[in-house]
Amino acid sequence: MEKKLTGAELRKLIRAGKWNRPTTGLAPGFVQANLVMLPKKEAFHFLLFCVRNPKPCPILDVLEPGEAEPGIAPGADLRTDLPKYRVYEKGVLSAEVEEVGDLFHKDMVSFLLGCSFSFENAMLAAGLPVRNMEEGKNVSMYMTDRPCAPAGPFSCPMVVSMRPMTPEQAVRAVQVTTRFHLTHGAPIHMGSPDDLGVKDINHPEFGDPVTIYPGEIPVFWACGVTSTLAAVSASLPLVITHSPGHMFVSDLKDEHLTLL
Amino acid sequence: MEKKLTGAELRKLIRAGKWNRPTTGLAPGFVQANLVMLPKKEAFHFLLFCVRNPKPCPILDVLEPGEAEPGIAPGADLRTDLPKYRVYEKGVLSAEVEEVGDLFHKDMVSFLLGCSFSFENAMLAAGLPVRNMEEGKNVSMYMTDRPCAPAGPFSCPMVVSMRPMTPEQAVRAVQVTTRFHLTHGAPIHMGSPDDLGVKDINHPEFGDPVTIYPGEIPVFWACGVTSTLAAVSASLPLVITHSPGHMFVSDLKDEHLTLL
Repeated sequence: MEKKLTGAELRKLIRAGKWNRPTTGLAPGFVQANLVMLPKKEAFHFLLFCVRNPKPCPILDVLEPGEAEPGIAPGADLRTDLPKYRVYEKGVLSAEVEEVGDLFHKDMVSFLLGCSFSFENAMLAAGLPVRNMEEGKNVSMYMTDRPCAPAGPFSCPMVVSMRPMTPEQAVRAVQVTTRFHLTHGAPIHMGSPDDLGVKDINHPEFGDPVTIYPGEIPVFWACGVTSTLAAVSASLPLVITHSPGHMFVSDLKDEHLTLL
Repeated sequence: MEKKLTGAELRKLIRAGKWNRPTTGLAPGFVQANLVMLPKKEAFHFLLFCVRNPKPCPILDVLEPGEAEPGIAPGADLRTDLPKYRVYEKGVLSAEVEEVGDLFHKDMVSFLLGCSFSFENAMLAAGLPVRNMEEGKNVSMYMTDRPCAPAGPFSCPMVVSMRPMTPEQAVRAVQVTTRFHLTHGAPIHMGSPDDLGVKDINHPEFGDPVTIYPGEIPVFWACGVTSTLAAVSASLPLVITHSPGHMFVSDLKDEHLTLL
């Protein structure tokens, strides 16, 4: 597919059923987001969970109950404009579908949360390695033993993504990603997977393993997959999320998210 | 009163009924906060209002329904540890009291929002003028014609605080306050009160007027009073806030709030 689409152009293709694969690397420069839809009865506590855990769950947009057109992408429809969705009933995955117009209803609230795809562009621009892109793979993601701050019925450990690089490059990566506080910001750890409770650096729980060259250290960022774990942790009657890698692509530009 | 108390020492005095006046300048270095308490039924939309308007309403802490001990001040009790509270019924001020243990109940949620007292210390440290402190007055605050982003039943215009200084000092003030994104961050405007819809720079709607010397411009920051206006805008059965200037003093240090 032609990669240089705008966010709106890509969403149009997706809505027409012409793209149902991951959005990694597509519409470069446009902010991509994790999606969580859940009943409004629990929306306060889920929003509070995100507020309390801003590194894994940075809030890009939250819609009024029943609404599906986000402020960060006028004209978009969250029920149809993602390539693939996952549906959870009582905390259990029950379906993977390409639209959710029949499931989403007026008492549900949609949350859009930042995704590290945005800062990867900034890292490339700074000459830093993004090994998963070099190797054409999904980024490596791991469960940690670090608990998120719970809120009401929502609680889960933090999930992290990992990119290997030299210690000198890691210094620069801290500088570059610090500016992107709405897409996970600075790393939460570097160097020692054990300290985070990562079981096996060569076997990520989500995504693909990537090569770590001699002289490189693993650098860990908080990961948006945490938001799915949190949403599902409450065993609600219905939760809808994006499928991993199949993100919502907004009209925001990466540079709009930088703090300074 | 001895000003060099810690946050916890000052709260102890307040709880014992030994201090019922404004907290400006007390417990220097400890973060002070605006308080809003309201029914949990509307807590999602009020939290959403704060998320959508982070400059006037930066979130420091939000408590579970019925809880009164904030994470940013273990051992504190929000029902007794502020010098003065305002009580609103159906959007109308009905009482000003020194504790609210008889009013607060298990179905209410407490919000603590950042206050510009924190960045004033940083401005002084940078050699910038804080005219209201020089003149021993409350800061000047104005209604603007800038609407906040509404959320559910909550909507109001933004309130701003104003500190006069030279344009060169204003440049430095932007740098200094940018770091304090949880206490309103960078100015939202400088130079032209008319552009903001400020009616009369010499007659602030809240607080006191201060001297503006020749060669100085007014510099405007988003103000936490906005959170009170927003909470009251929904005409809820019960809303409790701090009384203006009578803030909650936390255990957080100002420097903990800086982003970088």
